[in-house]
Parts: sequence; structure tokens; C-alpha cells
Amino acid sequence: MTDIDELPVAGNGLLDRRIFLRAGVAVSAAFLTAKATAVEREKWMSIPGEGMSGSGAPSAHESHIARAPIRSQPGTTGSGASWTPLQFLDGIITPSRLHFERHHSGIPDIDPDRHRLIIHGLVERPLSFSLDTLARYPTVSRIQFLECSGNSRASMAPEPVQGNCGQLHGLVSASEWGGVPLSVLLDEAGIKPEGKWILADGADAAIMSRSVPLDKVMDDAIVALYQNGERLRPSNGYPMRLFLPGWEGNMSVKWLRTIKVLDQPAMTRDETSKYSDLQADGVSTLFSFPMGVKSVITSPSPELTMSGPGIYQVSGIAWSGAGSITRVEVSADGGQSWADAALDEHVLSKSLTRFRSAWHWDGGAAIIMSRATDEDGNIQPTRTVVLEGRSPAAWYHCNGIQAWQVGADGEVANVYA
Amino acid sequence: MTDIDELPVAGNGLLDRRIFLRAGVAVSAAFLTAKATAVEREKWMSIPGEGMSGSGAPSAHESHIARAPIRSQPGTTGSGASWTPLQFLDGIITPSRLHFERHHSGIPDIDPDRHRLIIHGLVERPLSFSLDTLARYPTVSRIQFLECSGNSRASMAPEPVQGNCGQLHGLVSASEWGGVPLSVLLDEAGIKPEGKWILADGADAAIMSRSVPLDKVMDDAIVALYQNGERLRPSNGYPMRLFLPGWEGNMSVKWLRTIKVLDQPAMTRDETSKYSDLQADGVSTLFSFPMGVKSVITSPSPELTMSGPGIYQVSGIAWSGAGSITRVEVSADGGQSWADAALDEHVLSKSLTRFRSAWHWDGGAAIIMSRATDEDGNIQPTRTVVLEGRSPAAWYHCNGIQAWQVGADGEVANVYA
Repeated sequence: MTDIDELPVAGNGLLDRRIFLRAGVAVSAAFLTAKATAVEREKWMSIPGEGMSGSGAPSAHESHIARAPIRSQPGTTGSGASWTPLQFLDGIITPSRLHFERHHSGIPDIDPDRHRLIIHGLVERPLSFSLDTLARYPTVSRIQFLECSGNSRASMAPEPVQGNCGQLHGLVSASEWGGVPLSVLLDEAGIKPEGKWILADGADAAIMSRSVPLDKVMDDAIVALYQNGERLRPSNGYPMRLFLPGWEGNMSVKWLRTIKVLDQPAMTRDETSKYSDLQADGVSTLFSFPMGVKSVITSPSPELTMSGPGIYQVSGIAWSGAGSITRVEVSADGGQSWADAALDEHVLSKSLTRFRSAWHWDGGAAIIMSRATDEDGNIQPTRTVVLEGRSPAAWYHCNGIQAWQVGADGEVANVYA
Repeated sequence: MTDIDELPVAGNGLLDRRIFLRAGVAVSAAFLTAKATAVEREKWMSIPGEGMSGSGAPSAHESHIARAPIRSQPGTTGSGASWTPLQFLDGIITPSRLHFERHHSGIPDIDPDRHRLIIHGLVERPLSFSLDTLARYPTVSRIQFLECSGNSRASMAPEPVQGNCGQLHGLVSASEWGGVPLSVLLDEAGIKPEGKWILADGADAAIMSRSVPLDKVMDDAIVALYQNGERLRPSNGYPMRLFLPGWEGNMSVKWLRTIKVLDQPAMTRDETSKYSDLQADGVSTLFSFPMGVKSVITSPSPELTMSGPGIYQVSGIAWSGAGSITRVEVSADGGQSWADAALDEHVLSKSLTRFRSAWHWDGGAAIIMSRATDEDGNIQPTRTVVLEGRSPAAWYHCNGIQAWQVGADGEVANVYA
């Protein structure tokens, strides 16, 4: 046994995770007597189990692992959002059934055989693509995050809103997105020299409509057809959506129907009255495209009660619209001292990155927090810095450091620290 | 427009995919007149769509995308396999609902609160772990493939078996697997010097039981708790399974219940009468652990009919139990000439790797095939080489090159070539 008191890397019990991983640090397993080793067989070992199926489902014992749907428009069923339950997940992939939702007029029931993608505007050859046509074009696939620009809006409230991690920060998910580079389709249509932007429209009843600069489109935008290996699900744009890696989620227009090449942004409702950042001086900042560097500890987090003093894994996710995460630091003393967390093996650009630390909780009150850095050197700001200069009515692009207070009773709460 | 006839990289129309990706090669989009650009709104744009939900589902239009379940033991419901429908998937992640199944006595209905993992045998301290206990240990997550050693057994038949790609090769899937390194738990139990193997038992009624050498266990084995971000599904071992990256699937014992440290392999039923390779001389080779380097073209493939001459994407998956895929070659002339395929961005160790080529099909009969190479320099063998020295009754570990015949009618068939 290693003496854990000799292995601190930061204040209030943060330990070196390499030693946690390898040195046989006792955590909390129950010791067995020789007799207890001969465990009795449970009833499920005596009867044949359930058969194979065409499409599997999670365990009935896990039915509480669900998104938290919220309708933002009273009287509607389809205008609102549902949050990914981050506190119950691990790794970096979000199961498609739990990918967050944000719809402006619900999920359209699109007939894929009738749906077309139209490319028009400032092009040499207007084109129409069916799903069968798109299947013949080159495809790429990448694991990348998608975050609603309104994620973590609760952090803008004057007092900390109490909720679980998913309810507070679950408008971010990550999937393997597969589809046709939009640059290929635009090359075939032939962009006229004056073409500098595109306008992407969705086939939902709200006709979600966003302008995107051509540089981004030609860099890494795709017309996504696949999510985590299978066709997109209706709640994520079936049969096709725009996907703009690292940029605010609403621009990755779901149920993509038309791409119009323009010489300037269209200034649509969805980029002027909505999805703009109101400043304290009354001016709105438009076109805040990339999502800022950000992280959150998913465990421990509210509603996941600590079961007594001892060693715990501190785990969370980090991401940045600028590229890869290069560092995540964790503090267990409210930011007085920090230690580097370990990053899981897959550190991918514009994706979620899973980080982990080891923490020896002494059973007293403590404040834990995480702080991410990306490949451009951007460091996740404090909440105070994020609020500087903003109107109190603003609530997009909140990427401030999240602090969780662990109480002596093992309960975890949202605090500003 | 680029003249596609100037861009061959191998015989019978294989094209350079970089040019396919970037040069505006005309594929098959429909040109629009200016009038046609003003497309009519479909009915789903005029009514609010469906609301948010706690757990999402695929489109009803995709209900045909399912596993193909087969019961191998007449009269049972739980003994058999179900195949991943590879021909309908893209990217590298397999949706958990479509992960292949191979059960020996069905899926046990395990109460996670009662389930324990027991570590005993040649250890200093026998230990018992509940799910709550395991949650406090360090976790890792990695995207890796799992392949049944009986995958592609149809390739051993004297004449080519006709079926779709999933039915022939769909006992392979890839997921993000997350869990506790087994080395950490064994370190805590304390392996006695004479301990050289472990025996892993499952909690199903068949008590799947396999011996694993300690070197592998201490290298990269995990007690998997998560699959693609959420808890394992019952069909993949809920609430916990052993996961041995790159090794034959049955050793990654589902519903893991006991780990016993031994000084030698236990020679269980599941590693002597089953999962051994019968040779032509009557001797069975035991313990064929790593899965060989392999690839298969998933599109075009049987049941995906070609819609006439023109440019197509040839796409497939490659994998190796030895590590990463370094190269995939594709042929469109039955192996007379080969060209390097492009690999998607994520080329991960012991995972699926997605490859793609561009093919100008002239509408005539053609034989397409793929051949993978891994980081150890292993090259996927021909079917003939795989069969050399084996008993006609053998059917595990078939990693030979798969040839598909494309007919002039656009139909695709399984052939030996």
C-alpha cells in the first residue's frame, strides 16, 4: 500500500492520478473472507436469458438516465430544449438517444424520398441533391462536439441556480458526424467570384435560417447524413443537417433544405433578434461563431452524493471551438491551488475531451472546479470575466469556470466562487 | 470540370480520391433551372413538429436498419447471434442498439444493486466490488472494435454464401468502451508471485468462462462499465464486462462476475471444445487471441444496387488486433491492380478505421476488393492462404480478403476471387 498522504499535487487532497492508476491505492473495495468467496449464484444464472433482437435498448434499471425536456414556449410542444444528462455519462461520445435538443418549432416528419438539398444563389449551376445522389459523393467522418450558444445560461443568473450538471450545462454533446464536405458540392455548383457567404435554411416550420462565411464553409463544413454510425435521428436533423465544427449549435442548421450563396450575410431573424450578444452599453454583438474554451466537472456534481471520506475520481469534459484541448487543471480548494488532470487517450480537435483527477476527500466542505486550455492558448475564464461588459439580459456564450461546493454531508451544490 | 479520365490510380476506373474531394468532379446532381430553384414547401414546413423527448429514437423511415438475429440452437431463444448491418452504417462508431450480439444462454436480467465482481484465487486479499465501489476507481475510455472469432465464417464455405455485408461480416462492431483498468483492481488485491493467468466467469446461465494471460490483463484490459458514453446495455454485459482490446470477442466476458488468479489456464469448455482452431491434421490450436488484420468494403456490397455507370464512393472498414491500420488498398479489377484508399481522420489503435476510394464504374462486370495492412506490417491474406492447413470443419479467425462482384445489372454478389 502506498501512503496517499505522500502524493498530493494540489491543496485539499488532490492526488497524482498516475499513482492512483498504478500503485494499488486502497479505495473502498470490501475485503472477503475465504468463505465469502464462494458467492451464491443469483437467480439469473439458473434460467436462460432474453434472446437476440433487431435493435437493442438500455437496461430497465437505467430508465432514469434520460434527457430533461423543457418547453420554452408555453402552449407549444415543439419549441424548447432537452438537456443531455452529463452527470450520468462517461467518455466522450454522447449516445444519440441522449443528444441534446433545441428546436424552434419541433421535429418535422420529413419524407426522405421527397426531401432535396438545393444549392442556388451566386453559383454557375444551381443544383438539387436527393439522398441517393449524395450517397455517391465523398464522405468524411469526425467525432466532434455540438454546443448550443445558450448552454450554461443559468450561470448568468445573479444567484447560483440549483440543478444537476445536465440541467445546467447539458446543451453540449459529442457524436461522430459523417457526411459530404459542403465544399465539394459548392465546387460542383461553381461559386461566382462575388459569393462570400452562404445562407442555410432548414425544412422545419420555423425555417431556421443562418448566414455562414464562405471561409468556414470551405474549411470544414459538412452536410451531415450520419451520427454515431447510423443515419441522423429526426431530433438531430434527419435526413440531413449542416454541421459546422466548433461553432454555435444553431448554425448547424437541422433538416437542411437550401444553401444560397450570397455576397453578404442575410441578417435573418435568427442572427439579429436571436443569437446575438447584448452588451451593457445596449449594443448587440452579432456573429459570435466559435464556442469558447470550456470545461465542467461531471462527477462529483449535484445529485451525485458523496458516500463518506476517502478517495474519489474527479471526472469531467472539456472542449473548445478553436481546436484541441491541451490542458485541464482541477482545484479542490476553490481555486487557491490547481493540478493538471489526466486526459483520456482520445484528445480530438473540436471534440469533447474527458479529464480525470484523483481526490482524497477529507469529509469537510470543499469547492472543486476545473479550468481548460486549448491549442490556441485560450484559458477558460472565470464567471466574473465572462460577465464583464455584458448586459444583464444577455445569456449566450457562457463559458465561465463552474464551481461545485461539496458539503460535509456529501451533497454537492452550484456555487459562485 | 476536371476530365476524370486523366485521374486513374489503378485499373478499371479507380480514381484519386483527393481529386474526387476537391476538384468539382461532376457526380450526379440534378441541374436546376432558375424556376425550379423556387421549390415548393413540403407539408412538414407548415405545421409544428414533434416535441422534445427524454430518450430519442431513429426515424420511422429507417426501421429496416436493424440487426439480423439468428438462433443457432433450435428451441432456444437466447443462444445465437445477431449481426451488425454494416452495409447501412458509416464512420467507425457502431450505434449501441446495433452492436452485434453472441450469447450462449441469452441475456441475463441482472439486478445491478445485487451484482458483485469478485477477485480471488492467487491474491493476497480477495476483494468484492459493487457498482458503487467501482465508481470511485480510476476510469479510462477508448474507442475500440470487438469481433467475434466466428465472424466471416461463411467465407470458409466451399462455395460463396450469398448474403448482405452484415450477414457475412457483421460480427464486428466498435464502441467507446469506458471502465476501470483491471490492473488497478488486481494491484489492490495483490497478485501472488505464482499468479500468471486469470479465469473470468460471466453471470449468465451458460457461465461463459475464459482464461487470459496476466500480461494482457495488466497491459490494457478493463472492467467495462460504459459503452458509447452510457452504461453498458444488457446485450453487451450490463452492468459490467471484461474488455480485452483486439482479442477475440468471447474472451471479453459479458456480465463479469468473478476473476480468479491462476498459475495456468483453466482449460474450460469455452477454450477447448469451443473457440479453438481445428487443423487439417486433426490437432486443435488453442488460444488464438488477437484478431487478424482485416477489411471489408461495406459499400458497394450485396443488396445495395448500383444505379448506373458513373462515379461512386467505395467505402469500408479495416481493423487489426495488433494495433492501428496503416494502409488499405482497393482493387476494382479483381486484384490485378491496387490503389491506396484514403483513411478517415480518426485512425485509432485496435479500432475500426474507415477507408474510402473513388471509382468510375463503366457499367461493366467488375470485381472489387480491399486489403488492409497494420502497424506491425501484417497484410490481410487471401482466403486461400487463410484456408491453408485448416480442417474443413474449422471456422474461426477468417480474415481473408473479401471480393464483391458488381454485375452489369448493378447487382453485387459474394464471389471467391
